[in-house]
Formats: sequence, structure tokens, C-alpha cells
Amino acid sequence: MSDAGHPSGTTAADTVLAGLPQTAPGLADLYRDLHAHPELSFQEHRTSGLVAERLGALGLEVITGLGRTGVVGVLANGAGPHVLLRADFDALPVTEQTGLPYASTTDGVMHACGHDMHVTCLLGALDLLAAGRDSWSGTITAVFQPAEEIGAGAQAMVDDGLFDRVGIPDVVLGQHVGPFPAGTVGCHPGPALAATDALKVTLFGKGAHGSRPEAAVDPVVMAAATVMRLQTVVSREIAGGDTAVVTVGALNAGTTDNVIPDTAELKLNIRTYTDEVRATVLAAVRRIVEGEAAAAGAPREPLIETLDTFPVLVNDAGATDRTLTAFRGRFGEERVFDPGPATGSEDCAAFGTASGAPVCYWFFGGTDPAAYEKAQKSGTVARDVPSNHSPHFAPVVEPTLTTGVTAMTTAALSWLKTR
Amino acid sequence: MSDAGHPSGTTAADTVLAGLPQTAPGLADLYRDLHAHPELSFQEHRTSGLVAERLGALGLEVITGLGRTGVVGVLANGAGPHVLLRADFDALPVTEQTGLPYASTTDGVMHACGHDMHVTCLLGALDLLAAGRDSWSGTITAVFQPAEEIGAGAQAMVDDGLFDRVGIPDVVLGQHVGPFPAGTVGCHPGPALAATDALKVTLFGKGAHGSRPEAAVDPVVMAAATVMRLQTVVSREIAGGDTAVVTVGALNAGTTDNVIPDTAELKLNIRTYTDEVRATVLAAVRRIVEGEAAAAGAPREPLIETLDTFPVLVNDAGATDRTLTAFRGRFGEERVFDPGPATGSEDCAAFGTASGAPVCYWFFGGTDPAAYEKAQKSGTVARDVPSNHSPHFAPVVEPTLTTGVTAMTTAALSWLKTR
Amino acid sequence: MSDAGHPSGTTAADTVLAGLPQTAPGLADLYRDLHAHPELSFQEHRTSGLVAERLGALGLEVITGLGRTGVVGVLANGAGPHVLLRADFDALPVTEQTGLPYASTTDGVMHACGHDMHVTCLLGALDLLAAGRDSWSGTITAVFQPAEEIGAGAQAMVDDGLFDRVGIPDVVLGQHVGPFPAGTVGCHPGPALAATDALKVTLFGKGAHGSRPEAAVDPVVMAAATVMRLQTVVSREIAGGDTAVVTVGALNAGTTDNVIPDTAELKLNIRTYTDEVRATVLAAVRRIVEGEAAAAGAPREPLIETLDTFPVLVNDAGATDRTLTAFRGRFGEERVFDPGPATGSEDCAAFGTASGAPVCYWFFGGTDPAAYEKAQKSGTVARDVPSNHSPHFAPVVEPTLTTGVTAMTTAALSWLKTR
Amino acid sequence: MSDAGHPSGTTAADTVLAGLPQTAPGLADLYRDLHAHPELSFQEHRTSGLVAERLGALGLEVITGLGRTGVVGVLANGAGPHVLLRADFDALPVTEQTGLPYASTTDGVMHACGHDMHVTCLLGALDLLAAGRDSWSGTITAVFQPAEEIGAGAQAMVDDGLFDRVGIPDVVLGQHVGPFPAGTVGCHPGPALAATDALKVTLFGKGAHGSRPEAAVDPVVMAAATVMRLQTVVSREIAGGDTAVVTVGALNAGTTDNVIPDTAELKLNIRTYTDEVRATVLAAVRRIVEGEAAAAGAPREPLIETLDTFPVLVNDAGATDRTLTAFRGRFGEERVFDPGPATGSEDCAAFGTASGAPVCYWFFGGTDPAAYEKAQKSGTVARDVPSNHSPHFAPVVEPTLTTGVTAMTTAALSWLKTR
Repeated sequence: MSDAGHPSGTTAADTVLAGLPQTAPGLADLYRDLHAHPELSFQEHRTSGLVAERLGALGLEVITGLGRTGVVGVLANGAGPHVLLRADFDALPVTEQTGLPYASTTDGVMHACGHDMHVTCLLGALDLLAAGRDSWSGTITAVFQPAEEIGAGAQAMVDDGLFDRVGIPDVVLGQHVGPFPAGTVGCHPGPALAATDALKVTLFGKGAHGSRPEAAVDPVVMAAATVMRLQTVVSREIAGGDTAVVTVGALNAGTTDNVIPDTAELKLNIRTYTDEVRATVLAAVRRIVEGEAAAAGAPREPLIETLDTFPVLVNDAGATDRTLTAFRGRFGEERVFDPGPATGSEDCAAFGTASGAPVCYWFFGGTDPAAYEKAQKSGTVARDVPSNHSPHFAPVVEPTLTTGVTAMTTAALSWLKTR
Repeated sequence: MSDAGHPSGTTAADTVLAGLPQTAPGLADLYRDLHAHPELSFQEHRTSGLVAERLGALGLEVITGLGRTGVVGVLANGAGPHVLLRADFDALPVTEQTGLPYASTTDGVMHACGHDMHVTCLLGALDLLAAGRDSWSGTITAVFQPAEEIGAGAQAMVDDGLFDRVGIPDVVLGQHVGPFPAGTVGCHPGPALAATDALKVTLFGKGAHGSRPEAAVDPVVMAAATVMRLQTVVSREIAGGDTAVVTVGALNAGTTDNVIPDTAELKLNIRTYTDEVRATVLAAVRRIVEGEAAAAGAPREPLIETLDTFPVLVNDAGATDRTLTAFRGRFGEERVFDPGPATGSEDCAAFGTASGAPVCYWFFGGTDPAAYEKAQKSGTVARDVPSNHSPHFAPVVEPTLTTGVTAMTTAALSWLKTR
Repeated sequence: MSDAGHPSGTTAADTVLAGLPQTAPGLADLYRDLHAHPELSFQEHRTSGLVAERLGALGLEVITGLGRTGVVGVLANGAGPHVLLRADFDALPVTEQTGLPYASTTDGVMHACGHDMHVTCLLGALDLLAAGRDSWSGTITAVFQPAEEIGAGAQAMVDDGLFDRVGIPDVVLGQHVGPFPAGTVGCHPGPALAATDALKVTLFGKGAHGSRPEAAVDPVVMAAATVMRLQTVVSREIAGGDTAVVTVGALNAGTTDNVIPDTAELKLNIRTYTDEVRATVLAAVRRIVEGEAAAAGAPREPLIETLDTFPVLVNDAGATDRTLTAFRGRFGEERVFDPGPATGSEDCAAFGTASGAPVCYWFFGGTDPAAYEKAQKSGTVARDVPSNHSPHFAPVVEPTLTTGVTAMTTAALSWLKTR
Repeated sequence: MSDAGHPSGTTAADTVLAGLPQTAPGLADLYRDLHAHPELSFQEHRTSGLVAERLGALGLEVITGLGRTGVVGVLANGAGPHVLLRADFDALPVTEQTGLPYASTTDGVMHACGHDMHVTCLLGALDLLAAGRDSWSGTITAVFQPAEEIGAGAQAMVDDGLFDRVGIPDVVLGQHVGPFPAGTVGCHPGPALAATDALKVTLFGKGAHGSRPEAAVDPVVMAAATVMRLQTVVSREIAGGDTAVVTVGALNAGTTDNVIPDTAELKLNIRTYTDEVRATVLAAVRRIVEGEAAAAGAPREPLIETLDTFPVLVNDAGATDRTLTAFRGRFGEERVFDPGPATGSEDCAAFGTASGAPVCYWFFGGTDPAAYEKAQKSGTVARDVPSNHSPHFAPVVEPTLTTGVTAMTTAALSWLKTR
């Protein structure tokens, strides 16, 4: 890396990042605004409009409506490598319980996964990189993706011609805020995020008056028995050394106490890292759902539908090494960690699969460091630190935001040509 | 009984009922209209308006707005006994699946309990009794009650001064359509309908991302374990000779697959006939709900709230005997049966309790007799004949309607002074 | 009833029963001896020997070895009715925990159902009746039956030619000690004791090392899921007004912690009163057992075997009326009660079915009256009064014994010809 | 390593192992004899006698009765390193179902874990090493340990003064036969075998007649609910990336169908690799067991007793590297594999902990290679290859035996001084 154009002992990244203190307060306002206005998957109209406007203001070429609500900004800055920087921007059907002054203003919808932070950090990095374009050359494609939560947005943008429009990148870089101490960054080479299968299961019973169970086939009991049996997939059918998570995130049956309903609906979320374990789990879920329906005397076989699937996200070994080296130089060894494989899933891998480019995807912490340390000492991190998708998930604005902007900028510059 | 004013060999009831064939077709239209326009408890504005209009047209004194949406019609016809005839008119939060041409036009609301038939039959009986007022003397108070399904409407009318307005009746008469062959009527002396306790149970877990159950206390699993354990109340804690029904009519937790929710909500419906069994069941439900929450490591004790309670409905021995004698005379022995104690509940008893008048409450069949007989031969009545609260519950219009009008008219005349 | 041969104002029964105070202490010794030496079904060699010896000493004609270990004593005393008096004498595989000085001396075997009391009372009654034979005429056949607990002994005696040997009786009389206040007797006309089906269910899994559940199909979990689901038969498939009891009395799987066994074994006991309910329960049990095995991925369908079956015991209306009238005269109204239908079962009905004679079968109390009253006041009778088959079941010797002898003698004399 | 005394191109190990073909048939006979005569933990009297006799015949110094039934043989062969070679020799309470001609002759006891093979292979290695003592110098302590299955034998030998008697070794070497292709050896550096906690849980209910569940607190249902809930420890409370196994290996309650028993007994086997996960699991098990008892209304808190505990077995990095290097030289790269951490447990670590010597513990395959390959192709290894503790577990005698002798001899010589 040659840094000839910079003051002695400084790097291109030092120069580019120098502007961050000035921009950070404005980014914090943007973050709070995004947080207060969450939008569900493929309905991110306000968010995508806001992003497109910002990108235009920075002087990027802007493509909108790619994959329905996706937005792309291209910053072509002379010869050099082409890096794809990615942020996702949809929210979740969760009712916020943080009590924050900038909490969601939309009932039942919340940025409970931190995508608002991803958007803010990528816009912040683009601001710095655009302002500091004299320090680097190459092309940056900034991808703001819809519908990550349902595993559909990345593929929708690819299918809508993303790479025909922007060309093939040399690397795909993405990041996610998580329940780690704010100020830290973490990346795991190899399989870093799990494959997901989301299923909707409809159990068919037979409704009747609540006082006459003998006239019914009770789908509430059928559902309860099914949920209990589904626990055995992980506890009995997966070897200790393998990994699988089977969550029933939603169970809904009936509306009132004195009517036994006709049906019950389960929504399952399944995480695995290998094809073999995935096949075992999917077969076991089907066997259990059908067996429990048979045990219940169900009048009709259950209906099992796939809601969405995410592939495993595999961090490229070389790309991860390069990014981590840059992180260690920027943040210091002590703030860079290996989180190991996470059971979360991401459709960011779709950009790598479609383009053939290596992927590097990392985490940055969002938890108040003091609170984290306290929980760690008590051994209660898992239970006391609200994690993504919790109605209590709320990154501290700083140093989370500054760290996320710094990480994305640093990673981009480790691939771009610097002067 | 003196029937001096009637043709030889006929009775006052014969005379009054003679007009039924003419009025039946119009009543059938009214029934289909009511069925198509169901309204939830205490929201029966269209229904009560329609009832008030009809009562007025029949020349009755009309009181509206008693117990919010209740309507009363008084037909004072000289000296004689005072009979209270009661119909209930609210519908249920059930999505109709009958496919009938006159099915509900309101999404998610259905006359799945037949109250539309009760209203129609009482209006039909009043029409005949008003037209035939020369055949009898006394006072008829026709009570059209809201909110029976939530056990609140009868008490609301009482609390709103019903008996201050109309005086104390000599008897309270009511009827319910049920899954018996149309054309039959049934009445059980003594405890005829169960006490109900409806409870809402909120289970508190701790939400997290669906991939991180270790960060959660999963309320879906807690709810499933609770539902399975609740089955043991009836199967293990109630003696074979006692009766209790414990139904979880609704279980709702979570909305999406990849978020473990914070809470789960159960709605329970409990039926018993004695104070001792009721106390045993309620204590067991509380013990199980709390024990399962403890087993789950719940961060907070469950919340158990009472939604509504219905007392046991006890048919007065003398009143029942008198009514049944009239029914046998009218319908013939073979069409009058003893249904035994039913696990359903009714707040009609509140009119008896508040006034001190004896109560007689009976059933009339609504199932196509041929279909009933076929199911009976196959031993599948309980499963194949849709019962009250089923989304498939649909009385055949005739002979159900004619039977209901005849039963109500006959019962009323068995108490009134006839000439 | 003519009582010409007796002192003024006394009856034949008064005369016969006058000797009871003298014989009671010896009977108490006999009872304690029998209690200390329980023998399992069809292994009652000591007991049957002892009975045969006593019968011989009383001058009865003795038949041994009928139905393997059954014993019959015949006391022919001139012209008159023929009454069959029945006692059963087998014990249970229960480890006694009463701590009584005369507790079982045989490990794992206990007279936990009170058959020792039945034997003692019948021998006591025969002693009085033989001594008082001048007061009555007719024939008494005393049947001491093996293997009641497995529902096999009565039929075995019938099949072995009982009625060919002793002729057809005019009535079959039997009694059972139970958890009622000692000193009372109770009898219910009609269906008085339930039908029983005892099933053995073998669930087939696949064993493995305890650390490798993925190599196993865990039969312990399969059994647990099956037991939980079996609770729903009673809680969901039987109408509130019907009666069924489904008990899993034994669940055995595995011997050590670190080996997942190949199989699990359940023993079920099912009680019903009607053919329809019985059919519903048996079908549901089969459906659940098979469905749960399918849900578990069992390598082989479960094996369901019938261990034994008992028919419903129906007390003949006329015979019960006659017996109850005699009891009321003897014990006073306040000591005679109607226990209602009990969920227990008895093969005593087999003697009625085979001979065509009416059956009357009653209970007599065995609980210390003071303890019973205390539990009743606390509403804890069901839980605090040890009932039959409990390892704590222990009738108080008196007034239990005296009541049982008196009841059997009184009932017999109400049928015999008295002078 | 200098091999000056051996023919050109050969090693000391070549020389020592040259005798194996001659001794193998006799060893196979010994193996079949041991297999036919399994003995439970601390009852290995025949086995220890046979071992002591063989050790004496080989000219070793023999110590018997160490740790009750343990046997030690010492082969002091001049100056040089001191290696401890360890085999365990107890069997399991499993009923053999292999159908082999040399199957267990003791009912309910089986060498289902292959300890018979361990004994045979160590005796075979000692035979070769004693015969070839000119090729090496140093001291071999051969430890034949009782009661490995209950985690007690190694510590018992240590407590009985093992290291006072034989001195401190330089390394502890042990091996285990497993469900891998015969002919292969596998070793994992670091945590190689899990910690085990074996618990006995007694659940207290209240017994009653099977027809009167209302008089009971049913421990069978309590046990079933507990087993179902225990599945959630692994499925819900342990992160996907962590490892825990919770097996209920035995559930025993009741003996007969018509008696609800007083108690139920569970035996749990728990495997973990870290103190944190272990603490989480043990706390969850206690919480669930107590919570389910509370939900059941148990009259008394459950009793949780520790049956045995095994520490994690950590293979020393340097010792493992040395042993694996020797294995690769002996067997070729393609027959040496890394099995990863196994969920099995071993008390062999106790010899390392007590002496301070590094431990190296490896597996050797026992499955017919053709059968293994077939199962692997079908993806059914986990289900179709009988694993340790299965009643079908049966290593093929060869090449299992030859591989085990070769591995133990090779490993020993890689530490001893060779000439």
C-alpha cells in the first residue's frame, strides 16, 4: 500500500476518515429518524426515497426501483478495483419496547435488527469516500437492499439486472450490528452465518363449541404437542458436534376462549451449516408434523409451505484475511475478535454467488460497553444483553455509528487503489 | 285449562299456532337476513334496531338501549300470569365456512351459535301471540338480550333496571337451537347447563432473534408445555363420575418465524357443574400455569385474568315439568327428549336469579333429520354433525324455525291464562 | 318374612348375628395373618389352603382347585333359595408402606385392595350362618375366588365347571371394602363398576450410547410423548357427560443413564361404562400410540397387547332394592349410602353372566371415621384418604370387620328362607 | 530415533510387531472368551484373575486388588522413559442382541462398549513388547482398570496408591474401539471427550388405584412431562455453536396397569465440554425437574442425586502430535483420521490429572469396512452402524484386534527408548 499523497506517517484511510467527527452528529440524527420510521420488507418506500436523495446529493449515479424498492449508488473514481458495499434496510413486524425517544412511530413495526444502523453507516462511509476521492481510485457500488428479513431482497436485485447495470465487482463487503461491545468488530472466516429455512405449517383440526371437545379435533392441542416434539429434533437427532436451531417463532390458533378453532398455524425458523444436517432437520420436522397430526386424528394432512430460504454465508478466506488485517491496523488487535460461526442468516451471500466475487461480511458491536462488561462478569450476556430481533434491541448510537462508518470505510479502502 | 272459546277439541294454542304457516316464509327471510349480518357482543346495533322496529309494528311497548343494546317488548293483555320470553342476539368472532348463499357478509364474524334463529323464533311467536291475543290473557315480556357469548348481556339488562321497568315475571322461558334433529325439542330438569369460567393467561418469556434461543426464554414452548399439562386437569384430577371441560380455545404467540416473541397468550374456557369441581379445576389451572412458567425460567409470573363467568343454569323442576307436559302434548312423546346436562353455558339464569322466578330453558334441534340419522347409524354424530360455534354450524331453516316458534308459543301459553 | 322361631321382636338375622361379638377377635387375628401373607393372582396357595381348612372345620362341603386356586364351600340347609356369596383373595404387586405391625412379609406384594378383609368377612358370615342354621333354610355356596386383580379368576372358576358342581343360584352377592367411613355400607343400582381394558404397549426405538442420541431412536422420549398425548383421550375426546379413565400405571424403559434403550413398555388401564365410549377410547389409544411412534421415526410399529378385560358390573335393580332394604333395617338409614357408579372394576359380574342370576355387589367402609370426617371437612378426601391399590391402603380392623360380616350375613338372610 | 540394532530400513517397532501374526489367533480366542463373560463395574473378578494370570505368564510384576478389582503389570526394562498403558475391563447392564456364537452368557450383562477388545489389545501389545524387549528400554506400567462405565475405577486405583507403587509416568496412553471402519485409528488434540454428569432423579407423586386418578398425584405423567421439558435444555438453552447432550437413559415407574405408583425414577446422562455450558445445563435440569413437580402438585420436592461425574478428557497437544506421527508412519496417512471432539466420556483423564503426565487417548475402528462404506454412501452411518452401548454393538474381530494391538505397541514405542 502506497500512501505517497498523505502527510508523513498517515494513510489514505487516515485522510478519508479525518472528516468523520464533523459528519457523525448529522448521521446520528439520520439514524434516529430511520429508527423512528421502520418499514416492512419490500415496503421501504420512505427509506429508499431518503437513501436515493442522499446518494444524489453526494454526486453518485443513482439507480432506484431495482428489486422493487432497492437503491444503488455508483461512485466511479478512475481506474482501480471495483468494490460492492452493501447495506440492507427493511424492518421487522415487532412491537418496539425500548421506550426510546426515537422509538418506532409505526405500530407493530420496528428496526429490531439494526438495518437502520447499516444504512446510516454506509451513507456515512460514502460521504467520507466521496469527499476524500483524491485519496483513492476505483469504483464503489453501494447497494441498499430491501427485504433481507424475508431472504428475498438480494436475489430480487440480482434478478432485476444489478450486475448487468454495474458490472462484476472484485469483492462484496457487508456488515451487521450485533450484541457485542460497541467499538469492536468481529469476523469469522469460512461458514460465518447459517442457512435458514423458514416454514409455515398449517395444522387442520375440526372446530366446535369450547364445551364440546368430543365434537372437535382440537388444533390447539395438536399444535402444542407438535411444538413439544419439535424440540427433539435438536435434542435427539443432531449430533453434539453438529449445529442446528429449530425455532417456532409464531404459533397462532383461535381467537376466543369458547370456540375450538379449525386450524392452527406455526411458523418455523431453521438454522443449519451443512447440507446433511439441513436434510436431517427438514425430514424430521416433516415426520413430526405429520406424525402428530396422525396421532391427533386430524381430518387432513398438515400443509407445510416454505416462506423463505437463506443459503450459508461463507466468508472467503483471502478476502477475510485482507479485511481483518486492515481492521487490526485501524482498531487495534484488542478491538477485533472472531465471533465464530453465528446461527443468524443473511442473504448478502446472494451477491457473491451471482457475481462470483468473494464475500467478506463482519459484525460491529452495538451494546453499551459498560453494560456488556457487567453482564459478562455475571455470566448473563446471553440473557441480559438484548439481541437482534428483540423488542428491546437498541444499539447505543455512539460509538456504534462511528465504528460502523470506520469499519466500512476501512474495508473499502483496503480493496481500492490508494495513493 | 279451559278452552271454551275454541272450536270443539281444539285449544288456545291450536288457535294461536294456526297462523304459523302463513308467517313462516317471512320469518325465513328474516332469519337469512340476520344470519348474513352478524354483530359481535354489545355491538348489535343493526339487530337491535331491526328487533325494535318489528316489536313496534306488532304493537308492543318497546324499551331500547337496556344493557347497552338490549331491547324489550311488553305485551300487556289483561289480568293473568307474567311470562318472560328471552332470546339472545349476538354473534361470534368466527369466520363462516358454510358456503351458504346467506352466509355472513362480515369478515370474521358469524352467527355460529344460532342466536339469529332465537331472535327469529321469538319474533315469530310474538307475532302469533299478538295476533291471537283473544285466546289468552296475562303479560308477556319479550327480552332480546345482547352479549350472551361473553356472559355479560343478561346481567347488564338486569343492572340497567329491567325488573324495575317490567316487574317480576312468574317464569323465565328461553330456548337454544342445537345439534339435534330438526323437529325435536329437549329439556333436562335440574342442572342443565354448566358453569363457565373464561380465563386469559399471559405467559411472559423473553424475546430474541429466532437463531438465538439461548438468549430467549421461549414463550411458544412455555405455552405448548402448558397446554399439554392442562390436559391432565380433566384426565387426572377429576373423578370419572364428575364432569369438567377445560378448553384452550386460543393460543397466540409471535407473528413471524425468525423472532422469538416476548409473550404468549392463552384463552381458556372451563365448564363445571359443582362448586367443588370448579374449585379443583381453577386451582389446578393456576398451579399448572405457574409451575410451567417456573420450569421455563420465566422472568415474570404469568398473569391470569377472568374474562367472564357464567353460573350453572338449573331448570326448575316444577317449571320444567309444566313445559315438558305442554311440549309432549304439542309435539308428541317421540319428538321430546331429555338431552341430559350439557356442558354449554348460558347467562339466561341471571334473569331467574335476579327476579327469583323459576327458569325453564330448552333446546330445539337444528340438524337436517336425514343427515343426523345417517351420522347416528355410523356412530359419528359427535364428529360429523357441526355443533354450535363451529364455522360450519348452520341449522336447516325448516323445520327448525317452525319448531322453535311452536315451542316458544306453546311454552308461553302453558303459563298464560288461556280461554 | 316370618320370624316365628325367634324371641318376640327379633328376627332370624338378630339371632344369627348375636354370635358376632364372640367371633370378632378371632377374625381380626385371621385378618392380620392374611394381610401379612399376601399372594399374587393364581398363586394363592397358602390362602386357599387356609380357607379350605376353615370351611371344612365349619362342616361345609369343600371343593378345592376350581379355577386353579379357587375354593368353594357349600352349606346345604334344606329347602329354600340358593345364594352365592363371593369373596376374592389375591393380592397386588405393590410394596407395602403402611408401617403396620402386620404389614406384608413378602417383598413387593401387598393386600393393597382389601381382599384379605373380604375373605375374613365371608368366613365370619359363614361361621355365624352355620352356627345359626336353625334360623334359616336354603343353600349357601361360598365362592373364594383367585385372580380378581387380573380379571381372570371368576371366569376360570366358571370355565372349570362351578355351576355344574353347585347348580344355578338365585342371586350372586359380593362386597368390597373401600375408602368410606368404616361402619357404612353403600350400593348403587345399575352400572356400578366400570368395564376395564388393561393393555401392554411396547414401543420400539433404537438403542445407542447415551452420548449419541443421533444414532438412536429414543424410546424414552417416545414413551413420554405418548403418555402426554394419551391424556387428551379423556380431556378432548370424551364428552363431559360421559365417563372414561385412562391410566398409564407403569412406564418402564432402560436401566442405566448412559445407554439409550431399544424399547419402552407402557401398561394402560382403561375404565368405561358403555360400549360406545369404550370403542372411542380404544381407537384413540391405538391412534395415538401409532401416531407418536410415527412422529418419532420408530423402526417398527408399536405392539399393543391386551392384558385383561373386565365387563361392566350392573347391579340388578330388584336384587339391589331387596338388599338395600335389609341393610337399612340393619344399619339404619344414616349408615347406608349410594356411592354412585365407581370407576373400579370387578369380575364378580362373570358369575351373574354365566349363571343368569341377578347380581348385587356393595361396598363397606374401611377408613377410620374420625380421619374421614376430618378430611371431608378439609375437602381433601380424594387426596388424603388412601384408596385401594395405594401402598398406604389399610382398613382399620374395626368396625370394618364387624360391618363386613354383618352386611354379608344380612344380605344372605334377606334371600334365604328364614323362620 | 535410532534403530541401529535392526535390519536395514526397519525400526524397533517393525521388529516388535513382527510377531503379531503368530499371536493374533490366540488373542482372538481370548477376545471371544472375554466377550462371552462380561462383568459389571467393580465385579470384574473373573476378568481381573485372567488378566493377572496372563501378566504373570509374560514375566511382568503383577499388582492385584488395586481399586478393588484393578490389576497392574510392570515391565521394567532398563533406563528410559516410563509409559503408562491403560485398558478398562468392565461391562454394561445391557442385554446382548448380536446373536453371535460368543455372545454374553450372563443375562442382562454385555460387553457393549468393547472393553473386552481393549483388554485383549493391551495384553497382545504387552506380549509383543515383552518378547521384543531387546528392541527398547524404559518402563511400561500396564493398568487394567475396573468400573470405567460408572466413572469410578481410575480414581479408585489412584486413591489406592497407584502412583506410590509404580512411580510417575512420562505419558498416559489409552485407546477405545468405536464405530469407525476397522483398520483405522483416530485422535483429536485438545478436548476430545466430554465431561459427563450422571444424575438420578426421583419424582414423588401419590399412588392410588388406577381407576381413581383424582386420588393420586400421578408420577408417570409427571415423569413424561419432565422428559418432554428436558428436551428444551439442548433445543432452547444452549447456543448453536455450543455442545451439550442430555439423555434420559432410564425412566421407570410402576409395575402394573391398575396401580398408580408413588414415585418415578429417571436416570440422566449429561455431556458438555465447558464449565459454562455444564453449569447452564445442570441449572436448567434442576429448574425443570422442580418446576414440573410443582406443576404436578407433587407432595414433595424431587430428589436429584449424582450417580457419577467424568471430567473432560483433554489430549495433550505435544503428546498427541508425537503419537499421531508414529501412527501415520505405521498405518499410512489414509488410515489415520481426526474424529473431532466426541460426546463420549472417559475417566482415563484421571491418571493424567493425578500424575501430572500428559494424556494421549485415541480411537480405533471396529466396524466391518465394507458395511461402513455402504452406510456412508447411503448417508446412514449414524443410524445403521451400531455404536457403543447398543445391544447390537459387535466389533469385527479382525482387522480390529490387529489394529488395536499395533496402535498400542506403536504408541508405546514412540515414547520408549528404542535401539
